[in-house]
Amino acid sequence: MADTYDISFIGSGNVAWHLAPALENAGHRVREVYSRNPHNAEALIGRLYSAEPNETLDFTDSPSSVYIISINDDAIQQIAREIVLPDDAVILHTSGSTALDVLSYTASDNIGVLYPLQTFSKKRKMDMAQVPLLIEAGNKDTLKIIGHMARSVSKNVYEVKSKDRMIAHISAVFVCNFTNYLYSVGDDLLQTCGLDFDILKPLIAETVHKAFELGPYAAQTGPAKRADMKILDQHMDFLGDTSSAQVYKLISQLILNEHQAD
Amino acid sequence: MADTYDISFIGSGNVAWHLAPALENAGHRVREVYSRNPHNAEALIGRLYSAEPNETLDFTDSPSSVYIISINDDAIQQIAREIVLPDDAVILHTSGSTALDVLSYTASDNIGVLYPLQTFSKKRKMDMAQVPLLIEAGNKDTLKIIGHMARSVSKNVYEVKSKDRMIAHISAVFVCNFTNYLYSVGDDLLQTCGLDFDILKPLIAETVHKAFELGPYAAQTGPAKRADMKILDQHMDFLGDTSSAQVYKLISQLILNEHQAD
Repeated sequence: MADTYDISFIGSGNVAWHLAPALENAGHRVREVYSRNPHNAEALIGRLYSAEPNETLDFTDSPSSVYIISINDDAIQQIAREIVLPDDAVILHTSGSTALDVLSYTASDNIGVLYPLQTFSKKRKMDMAQVPLLIEAGNKDTLKIIGHMARSVSKNVYEVKSKDRMIAHISAVFVCNFTNYLYSVGDDLLQTCGLDFDILKPLIAETVHKAFELGPYAAQTGPAKRADMKILDQHMDFLGDTSSAQVYKLISQLILNEHQAD
Repeated sequence: MADTYDISFIGSGNVAWHLAPALENAGHRVREVYSRNPHNAEALIGRLYSAEPNETLDFTDSPSSVYIISINDDAIQQIAREIVLPDDAVILHTSGSTALDVLSYTASDNIGVLYPLQTFSKKRKMDMAQVPLLIEAGNKDTLKIIGHMARSVSKNVYEVKSKDRMIAHISAVFVCNFTNYLYSVGDDLLQTCGLDFDILKPLIAETVHKAFELGPYAAQTGPAKRADMKILDQHMDFLGDTSSAQVYKLISQLILNEHQAD
C-alpha cells in the first residue's frame, strides 16, 4: 500500500476546496483546517470526513506531518514566518509564482511546492486525476513525500524548479486569464449588435480542438495570418480608439510578424 | 418538402469544402464548381455527387439558379464584376467583413450573404448543423431562398445586416484567431523550460467550460483580476522587452481597469 499522510490545510480557498477532498479520496487524512475566515474553514471541513478547525497558526500539538499552505500568494511569506510546526513536519505551498525558498522562514528544509496548473472554482467539479501537478522540494526526503502525495491524486506530476514553475504560471495566464478576457471582448462586441455570446461557442470549441490537434502555430488562421491588410484596416477603423482596438492592433501585428515568412 | 436548389460554387476553399457537401446532404444539387486553380476545383468535385467543373466565369448556359462565391475577401468584388449569370440567378458570398453591396456589380439585387461563423480546415470534420449562419439579402425573395438554404443546413440561422456581420467577424477574430495566438505564446514559453503544450490542455478546456457556464466577465480570474501587483511585476520582469511582455502588459492593464470596481 502506498504511503499515506496526516495533513493540515492552511487556507480554504478554491485550490484547497478541490485538493483536500482529492487527498482524502486517495487515502490520506486531512486532520485540520486553518483559515483567517472561520466560516470558510467550516465550509471546507464540511466537505471532509474528519477534519477539525485549528484556530491559530500554532500546530505544536497537531497530529499532522504535512502542512499545505493554500492561500493568496502575497500572504504565504507572512504565514511561513508565523506558523509553528511539530518537529520534522513537511510544509508546502500551492502557488505558481512563489519561490520555494519563501518557506525557508519555517526554519527547516522540509519544504516544498505542489502547484496545480488549473483554474479552480468552488462551484465547478474538477477531475483532479487530469490536473498537472508541478512539484518541487527542499530536500530528497521531502520530494519523495510530495511525489507520493501528488501521484496519489493525479496522473500528471512533473518535478519543476521555481523559475520554470513561474514560467508555466505565466503560460497559464496567457492561455487562461487572457483568452478569457478576449472572450469578454467578443461578448461585448456582439452585445452592441444584439447578438448573443452563444453564437461564438461552436467557434471557440473548434479553435481549441484545432490548436490541440495541429499545435497552435500551425492552427493560426485569420486576416492577420493571411496578411489581409484591407480587412485589418476595416476592423481597425470600426474599433476606433477603444481599448479593444489596442489589443486588435498589437496581436494582429505580432501574428503578421511571426507568420510573414510562411 | 422544402424547396431545393441547383447551386454553383465559385471557389473551392475551406468554406466550400464543408458547405457544398452539407448542401447536397440537405437535398440541394451542387451542379458546378469554378476555381482559378483547376486542381482545387477537382478536389471539391471529388467530394460531391454530380458536380462538373466550369472553366470560366460565364454561366450563361448553367443549370443553376444559386451561385455561391466562396473565395478570399479581396477577390469577391472582381469576381462580381466578371461573372456572367443566367437571368434571375441569385448570387451570394460567404464572407464576414465584405458588405452585401459589393455584389451589386452583378447588376441585380438578387444578391445575398451566407456567412458561417466558424473556422474551417479541410482536414477537420465539421458538423454544419451546429454552425451559426449569418444571412442577408438584397430583396425579400432572395432572403427567402437564402433562408431556406441556410435552415436546411444549420439549426442556427440569423438575419444580420452587413455592419453587424462585420462586428460578429471582429468578435470571431478575438475569440478564435487571437486566443489561438495566445496559445502559441504559452506554447513558446513552456518550450523554454522543456515542458510540453499538453500540460496546458486541461487548463484551456476548463477555461472554455467556465466562460460558457458563467459568461466570460464573471469567469475572469488571474493576477490582474485580483490586482496582485507583486505577481504582475514579477511576470513583467521575467518577460523583459519581448513582444509577449507587450501583450501581458496591455491585457493585464485592461483587466485591472475593467475589474477594479468589482
